[in-house]
Order: sequence, then structure tokens, then C-alpha cells
Amino acid sequence: MGNKQKGLNTEIVTPSILPGFIELLPNEQLLFNEMKDKIRNTFELFGFIPIDTPVIEKADVLLAKSGGDTAKQVYRFNKGDNDLALRFDLTVPLARFVAQHYNDLIFPFRRYHIGKVYRGERPQKGRFREFYQCDIDIIGNETLDIINDAEILVVIYATFKALDIGDFTIRINNRKLLNGLFSELRIDNKIEVMRLIDKIEKIGADAVKSELASDFGLDEEAIDKLMTVISINGKPDDVIERLEKVEIIDEIFQVGVSELKEVVSHIKSFGVPEANYSIDLTIARGLDYYTGTVYETNLNDFPSIGSVCSGGRYDNLAQNYTKKKLPGVGISIGLTRLFYQLVNGGIIETGNKKTTTKLLLIPMDGYKDYAINLATKVRSNQISCEVFFNDAKLGKKFSYADKLGIPFVSVIGEDEVKNEQLKIKKMDSGDEILVDADKLIEVLKG
Amino acid sequence: MGNKQKGLNTEIVTPSILPGFIELLPNEQLLFNEMKDKIRNTFELFGFIPIDTPVIEKADVLLAKSGGDTAKQVYRFNKGDNDLALRFDLTVPLARFVAQHYNDLIFPFRRYHIGKVYRGERPQKGRFREFYQCDIDIIGNETLDIINDAEILVVIYATFKALDIGDFTIRINNRKLLNGLFSELRIDNKIEVMRLIDKIEKIGADAVKSELASDFGLDEEAIDKLMTVISINGKPDDVIERLEKVEIIDEIFQVGVSELKEVVSHIKSFGVPEANYSIDLTIARGLDYYTGTVYETNLNDFPSIGSVCSGGRYDNLAQNYTKKKLPGVGISIGLTRLFYQLVNGGIIETGNKKTTTKLLLIPMDGYKDYAINLATKVRSNQISCEVFFNDAKLGKKFSYADKLGIPFVSVIGEDEVKNEQLKIKKMDSGDEILVDADKLIEVLKG
Repeated sequence: MGNKQKGLNTEIVTPSILPGFIELLPNEQLLFNEMKDKIRNTFELFGFIPIDTPVIEKADVLLAKSGGDTAKQVYRFNKGDNDLALRFDLTVPLARFVAQHYNDLIFPFRRYHIGKVYRGERPQKGRFREFYQCDIDIIGNETLDIINDAEILVVIYATFKALDIGDFTIRINNRKLLNGLFSELRIDNKIEVMRLIDKIEKIGADAVKSELASDFGLDEEAIDKLMTVISINGKPDDVIERLEKVEIIDEIFQVGVSELKEVVSHIKSFGVPEANYSIDLTIARGLDYYTGTVYETNLNDFPSIGSVCSGGRYDNLAQNYTKKKLPGVGISIGLTRLFYQLVNGGIIETGNKKTTTKLLLIPMDGYKDYAINLATKVRSNQISCEVFFNDAKLGKKFSYADKLGIPFVSVIGEDEVKNEQLKIKKMDSGDEILVDADKLIEVLKG
Repeated sequence: MGNKQKGLNTEIVTPSILPGFIELLPNEQLLFNEMKDKIRNTFELFGFIPIDTPVIEKADVLLAKSGGDTAKQVYRFNKGDNDLALRFDLTVPLARFVAQHYNDLIFPFRRYHIGKVYRGERPQKGRFREFYQCDIDIIGNETLDIINDAEILVVIYATFKALDIGDFTIRINNRKLLNGLFSELRIDNKIEVMRLIDKIEKIGADAVKSELASDFGLDEEAIDKLMTVISINGKPDDVIERLEKVEIIDEIFQVGVSELKEVVSHIKSFGVPEANYSIDLTIARGLDYYTGTVYETNLNDFPSIGSVCSGGRYDNLAQNYTKKKLPGVGISIGLTRLFYQLVNGGIIETGNKKTTTKLLLIPMDGYKDYAINLATKVRSNQISCEVFFNDAKLGKKFSYADKLGIPFVSVIGEDEVKNEQLKIKKMDSGDEILVDADKLIEVLKG
């Protein structure tokens, strides 16, 4: 009947999604959501406030200052008279939001935002055109104490502890230090050189050196000095000590060193274990808006994944939208990419759990009411529960639970109702236990 | 310095979002998220499994069968060689998903999906071009027992109980009943007549009658019979009894009546209070894919809002994408619109709470470490806590807590640390209490 109503078109369109896009099957989706929930929970424990801006914005507002690669990747189109663009990150919408709602916000404004962003990149393994970012930022009004740079690192620490995906190191640097160093060495194309420095891990020090000579015209002495400074490593205190002794007189460099020193001292007093952070002077973060502390986070056992959480301090978030000075500091986790890498690298197991259901009730004929009432009781204890209502052989009902990874199954029939005792089958071991309703809740919670 | 790096463009772009789009301020966003969380939680308690499909799909796949108004409203555009469209609901993506991943899914497939959808409607009060839908569906493989139609109603009931936004009534009908009635009365344009019937509440019975005559050429007898049947109301059992006596011999009508009877009998045995559901034979749900039970949900005290949760049974979900027969039943809550109406109608209060933070710690000079360690302890109890680090006068720090609606504030100084006793100020009453760390957690949890 339905078919008749819908007319004659019975042509089948092959179901598929666009290249560069991703969607997850239930067992993956549950794990992904678990990670997303842990991130959100950690952000909220630190008092970050959620915002949720439109995915589509006015193109002229969203792209107020963007050029080059960003503009090329943006999904931009017209609808009626409107020139539209999909957001390509959560930072520009934050800037727009804070400028627009300035009078309604309380500063320092601690916001988190977990949402999808869009970049029309060339599709390649592990890169997606639609992906989740999980961002936090602390925005000050006119000023923002540098201790916030240390607190952001504490949030990164707490987040990756909560995610529980192995040992990690948060590497920090300070852009003033690099900028000052570049000034001292009379390097003009600071952003370009930053981007080159960023690649040092990927292409190696020698390649960087030769590019510094060939592309930026640096002489040997300058290259040596640059490489000597950025190769300083060791324990945070030692790095600071050595930086203080380096013969660079540029003032910005000195400010950078002292900011880094202050951030490290706060991090220490906040109790972040030394195993979980380090100073890495080769981190530059190519984005042009960072002006102070910058962060990258690596999983120790999987360095090839690259940074899983990055960010930094900026002097002026919303200068395209307001004359107010709004300094801030924040970080972003590219969750879709991280999840893909974790699963693909075998770092996390997607497993066989395809539902949050803890208990499947299988009522025999005439016992559906009893089952649904029991299910209501189980749910009132915040435990997910299903009743198998559909017609099928008993074996198929058990197989439903088995395939979904539901851990407990109970058949409800005359005996169970009469004796007020349920026989619960643990699906992993096959063990059966007799319980009353209260004991049932206990078992399911345990 | 940041400015210099960024070049000379200091032009200010007025920050704004597109007409027809909405974004919330923190106090509203927190309430919105609370509602979204309650809906998600209820869906999960009933064993629905999350999916999260791309917002952008291939236009030819997404629009496989859509025409008319839907097609006009769709955000459709090109990027490179791709013809793209933003999803306009979560049902078509579900159909595509189920067809595409058929072999990886366990049936009956109970899925929920909470996400944004896009419709380029003419902007008007309370209608948005980007809005959240919260959907559940149960999809069977070849068959799906009608008891699922009753369970969906139970989920609606549990969801609106959890939302706690006042008394509500879930109204149900069965499309077979209407279709059979139309056949009996030799009405051809069934979908159009359904849509007319749907408007009965809005335009009144007389207007419907005259349109039935003028636009559909029905004679007086047919109109009378139609109106007599669909005006049958009362308690569910009485309605069924009267329907069984109606002189309509059409078989489909009879099937509709008996399906409705079966659904009502399950609903009763499931323990849904009679105050919360009714049969309403004027509900038609204009969408052409419904084939059996249909649902609408109204807030009793705010009928003008219209239905806040609607859906129905369909025989064949994914016929555009697969030859497999996949019957299902599901509902959708248009959360953005609902939230807007609740706030705008004064049904819920957005209030002054702008953060989830429960406790603000204000450390005096030299006590930041102590404060951050205490904050860590508070957070480990799953309680949101902030430390005020930035330079400001004490009054301003308290005012920060006050403006955000943080309920507890504690200043940490020499006395507090020495005596291991904190003075906690309750911001609503101004009361101060002395607590140790354990008691603190207790107070914050209470």
C-alpha cells in the first residue's frame, strides 16, 4: 500500500556517503561517544561553559580575515541572497560570538565547544572533511593573567588522564621566544620560518638547515645560533636555566623566557607530574594568531600520530569583530582524527559492545506486562534495559543479546513471576544466577 | 605585536549570524543541554543505540525521492565535482545508513540520533533554518511486531516525564483507518485529504468541510460520514468500541481499527496513565511514508505550541536504497523549536545560572597551590570547581561568582590552611559555614 501511494519510482539509489566523510558503526560510535563524554565532563569540571554556534555562518563574517589555504578549503555557497560558509574551526565562531554578545558575557569567559567543523581538504587516510573539534578557551577582558596558560595545561592533563589512552606528554613553548630569536637573527618572514621549524620532527634538522639557507638566505652563523637555541632540551628547569644564559639580547626573547619560566613554575605548583610535560623549543604552531605559550600533546607510544591536542595564547581574539582587546588562551582536540588513529593503530579496541543495554528481558507468552514493569524498575535505577517483544524463536532472542553484546539476559515466565525470583544469564560466562528484584539491580550495577 | 604580524587589515566586520539561525547565551544553553541530556538518557535507558551521520550527503542520494517543498528548502551546492546537500531530517539519513550497513546491523535495530538538520524555510518566529531533531526508530528486518508501536509511546511518555515541562497528552491514530475510510468514500487524493484533515485543529471543522466539497468534490453524504467518523472521541476503549460499530466495510479500515485496538491494549498493560494518551482520529501526519500508527504529543496547558513530538509507523523505510523490506516505527522531537517556545512562552525559566561550577575558590597571595589541590579533590568527586586566578579586587571576584550564579565561594588564606577549615559562603543567602574538606564535598553534593 505504501508503495502505491508513493508512485512508480522504484529505482534503487546505491547508498553511500561522500569521499572524505566518515560515519561509525554502533560499536565504534559508542566508544566515540564515551570519549566525547569524558572530554565534555572534564571541561565542565573545570567550569568551562558550553556554547553551540550555527554550523552555517555569513561568509563575509566567517572569512573576515582568512586567506590562502583556509579560504580554498571552506564550503561556501549561496542560498537565496545569502552568501554562506560552513565553519572550518571553532575559534573564529568563538571570536564572533564573544564580540557579538560581549555585554552578556562574564569575563574571564571560560567556554567549551564540541562540534563538527568542515574543511574541503584533499581526501587522505586519517584526514576528514567533516570532523569534531573539542575546544576550550579562557578569554579575558583587556588582560588575562599568565597563570591561565598553566591552568589550560592542567585541563589537557586531566582530559588525557580521563581518556585513558596511554602515556602522553604535553610539550610547551613560547612564541615570543621564537619571535625574539628571529628578530635577533634579522629573520623577516617569521611566520614562514615558524612553519619550517614546525616541520623539524617530520623532515629533520638538516633539511630545516638547508631550507633556512636556500629559502630564507640565512648565513651559517645565524643558522647555527637558531639551531643551537631550539635544540636546548632536558628537564623544564634545566631548559629555563640554559635559556637564561643564551646570548640573545632581544627583549621579546627575554619576555618569552620569563613567561615560559612563570608558566612552568605554576605547572609545578599545580602538581602536574613531570613525566607529562616538557619544554620543546621546536614547537612553533604555524597559525599566525598565537603570541605566547603554545601547546602540543603527543601519545608517548605513538609519536607518529602527531599532536593530539594543540593550542596557545593569543593577544587579541576578536580584532576582526570588535575594538575591544580580548586576550585568551585555549586548546583544541581533533576528536574524529584522534579516534580514527586510535582505532586504526589498534591502540583502542572497538570490541563487540553495540548497545548500552545491560539487561535483555525475554517474556514468555502472557508475561509482557510483568517484563515491562520490571524494565521500568531497572530503568528507574539508571540502567539501560530492553524487553524483546518481537516474535522469534528463543535461540534467536538470545542470539540478539549475544550479537549486541548485552551482558545479562533473563527469560520471564510462570516460575519467575510466581516465585518472584529471576534467573539471570551472564552472557560472557554462561553462568546463571537466581535473584530477586533488588538483587537484580545490584548485579546490574556491579 | 600580534597585530603587526597579521598585516594591515584592521577593518571591523559587524559580528552577526544569518537570519533564521539561532544561538543561545550560556544560561539558555545550559538549560537546552540539560533537556538534550535528559532526552538522550531516556533513549539510552530503552536500549536505543546512537548513530551520527554526516551533515553533508551526496545530493542524489539524499534527495533520491524528495520533491516539492522539501527539495526547495534543501541547502544544496557544489564543491569541486561533488553535488552536495545538507540533511533536512534524520529519517532519510537513517534509511540510507540502514541500507548501506545492513550486514553490520542487528535487527530489530533500535537507533537514536540527536543532531542538527537544515531547512531553508522562510524565516518566521519560532521556525529555524538550523535546528536539533531528537529521533528514535525501531527498524525490523522484513517484519516488526505492532507491540513496538506501543513501546514507542512508552518512550515518549518516559521522555516527557523526564523533561518535566508540564502535563502532556500523546494522541494516536492509525493511517490505515483513514486510508480505508477514504477508499470507502471513493476519495482519490488521499495524501492531500490527510493534509487537510491535519489542519482541522487550526482552521476548524467547517472550513475542512467546505474544502472537502470545493477542492475534492465530495458530496454531502460522504463529508458527513467522514466527519462523523473522525469526530469520534472519548476514552480509548470507548473510541475503539464505537469504531467497531461504524458502518465501514473497507478491509483496510477494519485492519486500522484492529491495529489501534491492539496498540491501546499494549499501552494499557504497559502502565501508561490514561491521562497521558488518547485516540484522536483527526491526526493524519501529512508525510506520505506513514502507513499505520501515527503519534502527536501536546502540552496540555499550551495547546498553541502544537505537537512537540510526532511520528509513526512505516512499512518500508529504505525502499529508495535497498530491495530489503525494512518496516519501522519512530518519533522525532524538534528540540530547538520546543525550547524556543518553552522559553518564549514563559513555560520554563532560563534563570541566572550561567555555569555548571558549584564552587569558586579565591586564593589569597601564596595560596594558589593549596586552592588548586583542593579544586582537584572537589573535581575528583565529579563536582565542577573553579579557582579564581586573575588579578582583581576581592569584591570583583565575588561579583564574578554572583553574576555566573556559582552557588558557593570560599576564600583561601593563612587561617584556612592552618586550621584545615574552610569558610564557605552560600551566595544566595549570604550565610557562611565552616567545613573541613570532607564536609565540603558533602555540602556541595547536597
